[in-house]
Amino acid sequence: MSLIDLSKQVALGVDIGGTNTKYGLVNHRGEMLGKGRLKTDAFGNAEDFIDALYEQAIPLINKHCPQKQFDGIGVGAPNANYYTGTIEQAPNLRWKGVIPFAAMMSEKFGVPCKMTNDANAAALGEMMFGAARGMKDFIMMTLGTGVGSGIITNGQLIYGHDGFAGELGHTIVKPGGRKHWSTGSEGSLEAYASATGIAITAKKMRAEFPDSMLNKYPEEAINSKVVHDCAIAGDPTAIEVFRYTGQKLGEALANFVMFSSPEAILLFGGVIRAGDFILKPTKLHMERNLLPIFRNKVKLVFSELDEADAAILGASALVW
Amino acid sequence: MSLIDLSKQVALGVDIGGTNTKYGLVNHRGEMLGKGRLKTDAFGNAEDFIDALYEQAIPLINKHCPQKQFDGIGVGAPNANYYTGTIEQAPNLRWKGVIPFAAMMSEKFGVPCKMTNDANAAALGEMMFGAARGMKDFIMMTLGTGVGSGIITNGQLIYGHDGFAGELGHTIVKPGGRKHWSTGSEGSLEAYASATGIAITAKKMRAEFPDSMLNKYPEEAINSKVVHDCAIAGDPTAIEVFRYTGQKLGEALANFVMFSSPEAILLFGGVIRAGDFILKPTKLHMERNLLPIFRNKVKLVFSELDEADAAILGASALVW
Repeated sequence: MSLIDLSKQVALGVDIGGTNTKYGLVNHRGEMLGKGRLKTDAFGNAEDFIDALYEQAIPLINKHCPQKQFDGIGVGAPNANYYTGTIEQAPNLRWKGVIPFAAMMSEKFGVPCKMTNDANAAALGEMMFGAARGMKDFIMMTLGTGVGSGIITNGQLIYGHDGFAGELGHTIVKPGGRKHWSTGSEGSLEAYASATGIAITAKKMRAEFPDSMLNKYPEEAINSKVVHDCAIAGDPTAIEVFRYTGQKLGEALANFVMFSSPEAILLFGGVIRAGDFILKPTKLHMERNLLPIFRNKVKLVFSELDEADAAILGASALVW
Repeated sequence: MSLIDLSKQVALGVDIGGTNTKYGLVNHRGEMLGKGRLKTDAFGNAEDFIDALYEQAIPLINKHCPQKQFDGIGVGAPNANYYTGTIEQAPNLRWKGVIPFAAMMSEKFGVPCKMTNDANAAALGEMMFGAARGMKDFIMMTLGTGVGSGIITNGQLIYGHDGFAGELGHTIVKPGGRKHWSTGSEGSLEAYASATGIAITAKKMRAEFPDSMLNKYPEEAINSKVVHDCAIAGDPTAIEVFRYTGQKLGEALANFVMFSSPEAILLFGGVIRAGDFILKPTKLHMERNLLPIFRNKVKLVFSELDEADAAILGASALVW
């Protein structure tokens, strides 16, 4: 029996998004020893992706783990299942069907691999190292290409009976509303509050208001960053795009609050760069739709962690 | 030190609804030793109610607890807070404001008193003695005068940071929809799926269809039982009332499933007497609004316990 220096044990944390994958080597103290990234959507299947990740990550692991202190891999990915280690029918990934991702990773790297939903991983990271430190009840919403969520109640992630809990981006906020480009569902939160949804809203609204600054951009250039630029320049249509988005998001958050009564809702991801343009209407419509007992209690805050780091740190924590 | 015979320890379980209150003396094995009821809405304030409950319950307690084996009281009530023992601004009760109910009960009866939301109490009862025995993840929906809910994840009730989690009846299912008679919110689940909501729907629909059997009844007689009678007799309008109610309920349940991914949703309360008239459209619209990964997994079942017993048993379990 030998003493183990925990500070020298490391795990690889991997955050798989629809577009980009980021990974980092993390020690027990939550220190990032090194990191890297690759394009998720450059790979048509999970095998090729894992091969490429291996080629990139192994030099990093070998550099920091000369004495086999590499404990394992934690992965956050869309529709990843904590119980089975599979990625199942993820709408935002090119890899379709049910993929035994954890088993494939484990075989390739020769260490154990644990998985969870990418937003769950971010929530864990936020609870251990970010704005939710010390909180036992909070909801993490990631507003990026899609809308993800991780729900903590009583200090634990909600996984549900099958490991798929926390798909709040796919809850319906407007029955019979906007059709989702991938799931086909009508009026889901993701169809409005994701970067993709914001671009759709912007394209619709600029068509209604020919004077809008948004009309200076070609169709394919319209994205949430351009809308933000126009809002800063004072364009009323661009401001209205975020107001409408915030209304839909706020209405959805009110429903989530009445479900689990969290101390805080953390917002996270590219969309929050719009700052108060989105935060203010979100808060207004959240409060407006709450029962009085819930009003003016829930902190609505932006994540303090670097977006990628939260998920990498949270994913790495699955190993221990 | 003396040995205690647990089977002789008893608790009073109290289930406070907007209209009726039911109570029972329960032992450790979940056996009901005696029970009774009184009208909640006959009392304009909580003090008078507690006095009346005391007068009724004390003979029962004295009969079954000759040797001071009366351990305490567990109460399920609308907007009751597990952490503070208060009833706060309950929309369906005549008693307004913040009422220190547990402290008042404890002082009157001379034993400890624990409280929770009435639907939470029913969920606990169902987990220990009913259809949810052995389940770690389920949602209990009570469809009565109002719509209540109790949410169990990972084998525990979700209380939230302030004790008010699980107010699913007040989540918005149709933004800008029907105004709630008490909360003023627009388009909440309770406005459609409660007995009160069903009566409103029936009154609207019978006005549109003069041939409907529902038009044979005076305005004040229209309630969910009458709608059920007409549906059994084949009245298409009455059947449509339940179909529409089931659609709204099913859409709401789909959102709840994508939140906590329960193994089952238990339906409970007077409204479920409508049977398949409401169950079938509820299931149809729940499945239709779910992401594929959630489809055909969630058991949608009626409670097996007597409606009152579940909440009394669950409330009594708060004592131990």
